[in-house]
Amino acid sequence: MFFHRQELQFKSEPEQPDAVYARKLQEVLGGQYGEITVAMQYMFQAWNMHVPGKYRDLVFGIGAEEFGHVEMLATMIAQLLEKSPLGITEEAVQADPTVAAVVGGTDVQHAIVAGAGARPVDSMGNPWQGAFITASGNLLADFTSNANAEMQGRAQVARLYHMTDDQGVRDLLSFLLARDTMHQNQWLAAAAELREQGVEELPVPSNFPQSKEQAEVSYQYLNFSDGTRAAEGPWASGPAPDGNGEFSYHEGPTTNAPMPPPTHPDARFYGTTEVPDVVERTAATAQDKLHRE
Amino acid sequence: MFFHRQELQFKSEPEQPDAVYARKLQEVLGGQYGEITVAMQYMFQAWNMHVPGKYRDLVFGIGAEEFGHVEMLATMIAQLLEKSPLGITEEAVQADPTVAAVVGGTDVQHAIVAGAGARPVDSMGNPWQGAFITASGNLLADFTSNANAEMQGRAQVARLYHMTDDQGVRDLLSFLLARDTMHQNQWLAAAAELREQGVEELPVPSNFPQSKEQAEVSYQYLNFSDGTRAAEGPWASGPAPDGNGEFSYHEGPTTNAPMPPPTHPDARFYGTTEVPDVVERTAATAQDKLHRE
Amino acid sequence: MFFHRQELQFKSEPEQPDAVYARKLQEVLGGQYGEITVAMQYMFQAWNMHVPGKYRDLVFGIGAEEFGHVEMLATMIAQLLEKSPLGITEEAVQADPTVAAVVGGTDVQHAIVAGAGARPVDSMGNPWQGAFITASGNLLADFTSNANAEMQGRAQVARLYHMTDDQGVRDLLSFLLARDTMHQNQWLAAAAELREQGVEELPVPSNFPQSKEQAEVSYQYLNFSDGTRAAEGPWASGPAPDGNGEFSYHEGPTTNAPMPPPTHPDARFYGTTEVPDVVERTAATAQDKLHRE
Amino acid sequence: MFFHRQELQFKSEPEQPDAVYARKLQEVLGGQYGEITVAMQYMFQAWNMHVPGKYRDLVFGIGAEEFGHVEMLATMIAQLLEKSPLGITEEAVQADPTVAAVVGGTDVQHAIVAGAGARPVDSMGNPWQGAFITASGNLLADFTSNANAEMQGRAQVARLYHMTDDQGVRDLLSFLLARDTMHQNQWLAAAAELREQGVEELPVPSNFPQSKEQAEVSYQYLNFSDGTRAAEGPWASGPAPDGNGEFSYHEGPTTNAPMPPPTHPDARFYGTTEVPDVVERTAATAQDKLHRE
Amino acid sequence: MFFHRQELQFKSEPEQPDAVYARKLQEVLGGQYGEITVAMQYMFQAWNMHVPGKYRDLVFGIGAEEFGHVEMLATMIAQLLEKSPLGITEEAVQADPTVAAVVGGTDVQHAIVAGAGARPVDSMGNPWQGAFITASGNLLADFTSNANAEMQGRAQVARLYHMTDDQGVRDLLSFLLARDTMHQNQWLAAAAELREQGVEELPVPSNFPQSKEQAEVSYQYLNFSDGTRAAEGPWASGPAPDGNGEFSYHEGPTTNAPMPPPTHPDARFYGTTEVPDVVERTAATAQDKLHRE
Amino acid sequence: MFFHRQELQFKSEPEQPDAVYARKLQEVLGGQYGEITVAMQYMFQAWNMHVPGKYRDLVFGIGAEEFGHVEMLATMIAQLLEKSPLGITEEAVQADPTVAAVVGGTDVQHAIVAGAGARPVDSMGNPWQGAFITASGNLLADFTSNANAEMQGRAQVARLYHMTDDQGVRDLLSFLLARDTMHQNQWLAAAAELREQGVEELPVPSNFPQSKEQAEVSYQYLNFSDGTRAAEGPWASGPAPDGNGEFSYHEGPTTNAPMPPPTHPDARFYGTTEVPDVVERTAATAQDKLHRE
Repeated sequence: MFFHRQELQFKSEPEQPDAVYARKLQEVLGGQYGEITVAMQYMFQAWNMHVPGKYRDLVFGIGAEEFGHVEMLATMIAQLLEKSPLGITEEAVQADPTVAAVVGGTDVQHAIVAGAGARPVDSMGNPWQGAFITASGNLLADFTSNANAEMQGRAQVARLYHMTDDQGVRDLLSFLLARDTMHQNQWLAAAAELREQGVEELPVPSNFPQSKEQAEVSYQYLNFSDGTRAAEGPWASGPAPDGNGEFSYHEGPTTNAPMPPPTHPDARFYGTTEVPDVVERTAATAQDKLHRE
Repeated sequence: MFFHRQELQFKSEPEQPDAVYARKLQEVLGGQYGEITVAMQYMFQAWNMHVPGKYRDLVFGIGAEEFGHVEMLATMIAQLLEKSPLGITEEAVQADPTVAAVVGGTDVQHAIVAGAGARPVDSMGNPWQGAFITASGNLLADFTSNANAEMQGRAQVARLYHMTDDQGVRDLLSFLLARDTMHQNQWLAAAAELREQGVEELPVPSNFPQSKEQAEVSYQYLNFSDGTRAAEGPWASGPAPDGNGEFSYHEGPTTNAPMPPPTHPDARFYGTTEVPDVVERTAATAQDKLHRE
Repeated sequence: MFFHRQELQFKSEPEQPDAVYARKLQEVLGGQYGEITVAMQYMFQAWNMHVPGKYRDLVFGIGAEEFGHVEMLATMIAQLLEKSPLGITEEAVQADPTVAAVVGGTDVQHAIVAGAGARPVDSMGNPWQGAFITASGNLLADFTSNANAEMQGRAQVARLYHMTDDQGVRDLLSFLLARDTMHQNQWLAAAAELREQGVEELPVPSNFPQSKEQAEVSYQYLNFSDGTRAAEGPWASGPAPDGNGEFSYHEGPTTNAPMPPPTHPDARFYGTTEVPDVVERTAATAQDKLHRE
Repeated sequence: MFFHRQELQFKSEPEQPDAVYARKLQEVLGGQYGEITVAMQYMFQAWNMHVPGKYRDLVFGIGAEEFGHVEMLATMIAQLLEKSPLGITEEAVQADPTVAAVVGGTDVQHAIVAGAGARPVDSMGNPWQGAFITASGNLLADFTSNANAEMQGRAQVARLYHMTDDQGVRDLLSFLLARDTMHQNQWLAAAAELREQGVEELPVPSNFPQSKEQAEVSYQYLNFSDGTRAAEGPWASGPAPDGNGEFSYHEGPTTNAPMPPPTHPDARFYGTTEVPDVVERTAATAQDKLHRE
Repeated sequence: MFFHRQELQFKSEPEQPDAVYARKLQEVLGGQYGEITVAMQYMFQAWNMHVPGKYRDLVFGIGAEEFGHVEMLATMIAQLLEKSPLGITEEAVQADPTVAAVVGGTDVQHAIVAGAGARPVDSMGNPWQGAFITASGNLLADFTSNANAEMQGRAQVARLYHMTDDQGVRDLLSFLLARDTMHQNQWLAAAAELREQGVEELPVPSNFPQSKEQAEVSYQYLNFSDGTRAAEGPWASGPAPDGNGEFSYHEGPTTNAPMPPPTHPDARFYGTTEVPDVVERTAATAQDKLHRE
Repeated sequence: MFFHRQELQFKSEPEQPDAVYARKLQEVLGGQYGEITVAMQYMFQAWNMHVPGKYRDLVFGIGAEEFGHVEMLATMIAQLLEKSPLGITEEAVQADPTVAAVVGGTDVQHAIVAGAGARPVDSMGNPWQGAFITASGNLLADFTSNANAEMQGRAQVARLYHMTDDQGVRDLLSFLLARDTMHQNQWLAAAAELREQGVEELPVPSNFPQSKEQAEVSYQYLNFSDGTRAAEGPWASGPAPDGNGEFSYHEGPTTNAPMPPPTHPDARFYGTTEVPDVVERTAATAQDKLHRE
């Protein structure tokens, strides 16, 4: 169950309206790595988790905080839009170039659809979608996904920090940056703890028997481009992080197989399955012929 | 530039057709963490990368390999569909329960749209989309994203391994599992190398000055759920992985702010902005009153 | 801010696993009218609302409850999936027709992607999306949208009720049905209150001056199909619900205008703009000619 | 069957081109509540309707009109784009700030993809999608959905009215506003008629037996936020609109249940299911222990 | 304007219900190449067309017919769903394997969302979307797109023909197949007419001056795979269809250019832009060095 | 298998940065008819093709080239973004109208998400999706689809050519225009070859027996609009391109059928199925009555 309190975790009021910036801020509200994503991701991880205890309490504890971050951003966006001009005439644009910027730089659905309100979309107007979240049930995989989300999110907030000089907005971003710092650290600490306790190991999933892998390629770096300097990295030689093998470096594939012959499904799929003999006779390989008969 | 060779990196032929399994295999071809995702993700990271040398050669080298994995899966799926029945009558279903399973378990677009061929979709038929990839330009963030993708991907392949006993299919999955082992290890090694060389540090992005964060909450675990055991984790006390702070644990928020008053945009947005005096008079708070005047 | 309590609002445990039903239940979790939709819709309405007081407290109060409903459904789905079979062989299908049903009837991403967990998708596997919600800032419009959402949602839950005879599942549905009853009633009561208090009237938005409408068609039923019985309805004669006009009934349009001539954009758009004279000479109308010159 | 006449229902010609406004107008053509939505929604309701007579004639009659509205808007948009500049150089921008506005404010696919033509998308360029429509077969639910669509649509057109001073565009909007007035009234009248005739009642669906609901919460307002003024509304006390119960008001839930223990699916899903004894021993509750054994 | 007549263009009644087939039929109603696509595509082409006369009358004339095809399919689907079972219990599945097939093979939203009605989605449940249509304003390009749509559509209907033996369904498909035959022929005839009249020529768009092309590669077949038999085709030698050049055949590219150095955007984008000297010193190329300074 | 070479097929460097143009260029990278589409489309056609030899070598050969075009465009876009301003203040806008244009005209995710890099999206920010491609297994249908894609693509590049005067950008577009010329010609030549060799004929699919069509409407032009000039076209009389019939012209349908009665599904779908007798008695037709009983 969730309980709402009509307070914010941090002050979230801009010095002045800025409809163009409101649109940019949508990215960290409703984008691929926005607050809706992390809130939903942590909650679905909690609901799907198979172990009780500290890990589950952790995702529940943070997930609920993130819904509060969604709220702070939505509130801020509504305020940034409060004085956004509705009817822009050509004269206004001629008189003031800033108006021209506003014409083009806003999310026009902020005005037409939401009546100067926030929306569950990213900065280009794409709706938030469930496909943004990750909740596999495997904790080491999922905590790595969480660390990634917090890293991408903090990078985006850091970029947004330089796109405004409104102190009120920057204050909120400072707060979010700090929480992203905490959450990055926390997920990395949690991932390390999983490995330390032997709950989950590399490679993920660690309880799949590696004996069933095609073992000779498990630690080979195979270079399918013509750059040569990847050979200099720690992934090209030395022990692998999982402790189970030694890296080696190879130009291109170390294994290969012939392309299987084309398939010949039921004729009633109406694919093109037969090329007349006269055409193909000279060139067809024996194998192809065999297959077509 | 890309050059194609009409060979596969590994044998990819099923023992027998299985249209139901073909549909499941679509997940690791065209799903959120399928091979199209990693191929595209690594290539976009390469095209957007700001440094020459071993890191760029790495993403180019692996990206091209992943396109070959897309090809192996598409080829396998077409073969699994080769004998898939087209016209299923009620009599056939009555005679053989397996047919009933096939009726429901297939991706019907495999038949109707692709004529018994593979498609760029996931196992529920959702089209692959560009929103699945991550390429931020920040290498530590992106390599963490890559590690996550390879972990999720390997977990999915491991699950698929148990959903068939076709040895030909399992051989291909064994190969993919091994390559995922390599790629997981490799991205973690690359992320470690970035930190070791001081190219990028935690928290990401490390060149954003932490002095601009709201520092007092940068290392606080704030518990917004009523579970208590998160306090036992390494994220609740002790040094944070970034080496810049000490974790602490708190029940709920350590900061708060009043909810700002509602916004009052231009009346021509036709939102509901005024509640008649007679109604609100008795109850309105002073602050609300002020704002409305 | 949101606070989470590790309790449910109602008992949510199935008598036995049922992976096929788990997939169906996704509709009311992550579908167009599922619980994620109403939770998000009410919260965005609250964040964007322009008046303080009872209406805003109402959407905040219910919105938070709905997040708890998301949780109950996700929890239930995970339990329904708990014993879902992973590896289904042909022999099992032959032995038991139920297995055949399971093969086809499940959301295969429940297994492959979520490892037997719930997902933010509908019953056909489409991800939940922000485009499902409505929050316009106009309270009468939005409360009507809310009433609609609760009606559609209750109809869906009622249908789902008959698709299972698991008493545990039905208990949860009984609870949701009751809450949908409440919420339907509540939004209709709130909409009526808005009109009674004169806060908002019909037609929505009521503060747009009707004098700017093309008034002669404001209360005309125009029949563009050849059915005749729509003339019998209360929308074809008598006073309109908004109290501002009298309905009338007409076969087809009461106004019309000629189709404007085709546009002729800049030739560098490379549309086909000129049909050679020799072809068109005989047939072109005077008007067309004029336009082309 | 549909028959097309090369006439419009109303004059639809702008005074002058305006590519920026053309983009905004896309919202009411191809957006969530645009004309494509209502045209498709009414037609699918007609095709799926289970009763002959006046209700079906109504949706057929209006649905066909709405396709004509799609046509008027598409025609208008093409005209607004007719003189839209193609090649914008920096010099032009320097010379005239209006050009700067145009650069940013247009749907660039209008030019690149459609060659100065209309598109089936909303004002942010998102394609129209089938998920926008509602057709449940339950007439009271669906007519409420229709009323909502006409309300949202009219609010959007009213907003757009103030974003231009082109008299030709405003004339078209005046016409659409009038039709939206009619359609709002009509759906509310039709919904009232359904109830009056006893065809469908509240709560929807009314033929689901309320005896199967968890009746004690069917008329309770449960307040999950800390605002207190929702207690003042007509939804907090007094008779409910469906005539079947009395509203009451409660702070928070009136029912609750413990969170069920975590699920433990088949180990071959490779979720994290076991936390080593040494770690959990001290803290695990008896219930958890039991479950894990 | 559109006028609806409550008749169908052809008999559309199944012999008996078949919920599984109803789902398959959705593909040609709401899929990428279904009837909604062609109806919308032709209408948008008409609205955006820049020339009056026979070509515009053609797209108007056919577009309206296609909306009638949407109606026939929606009607048929609703009938196929009429007796679809709602509540399926395990006992029913045990008793009759056909029920198992039905469990898995249906679009469950047909039942849960539409109450046994048709939906604007494809056979895997993906909503129809505006991105399926093509209307560029260039008639030769668009008529080629139309021919393609009718070919794909006819192939899909032909496949569906073999997936049922219901004579009523087959009758409708026979009708659609015949109309697709007409429409394929018609668009090819219309494309030929455009070329014959010199309205539009190859390559499309023909009024872009070929002198601005990089002419030496305009008629070269460049082989980027290692198959050799493409050299045997008419695209590898001889005159090109546009009459402006001679085909030639080449292994791989005939032109090339070095990869440009990596970009170095503003540091405040927080991408990784600098690799410490100590690491790169030994390996950096002179060019890279230059760029980084 | 795919091998990457760190070279481009053609010089791809702009004279100067232009973030607005970078966004426009996304259309031909990640749009419906962008390079990702053709690369993926040709590859899936190759993987699904049922005949070996020249046709398969053709799609493999061109598909790999197209991935190189994706790379050229991504590289160019990153360069155009290299100096894109990050922090735009109102003062800058006041000082220089070009800045205003830039504010509105860019893809803001280029900055916030990709840190000044290319993305797999179109010019309005919609992600590329698998639903853009066509691979049916029928070669004549698919090669027609390919010709269409190359025509639409060339029209878009031609339009983009006039939207910049940067010589570096134009050089790249000149190259792409030339390759599109080649590919248009090639697919038309390949389609002609299929027909010449008798591999596939019109109507597609040609091996579906036309005797199963409703033959009397196979060559009828049916005019559902009131324009009259479509009668002048070659599709209204004379032999059809498939050589199997003669076109004829008709006003409206030549066949028709009554609308079937409404469906009456199981009452537990909670659709509205019964209208009370008192209401309908006077008007209901005998047939309707019968059906309702």
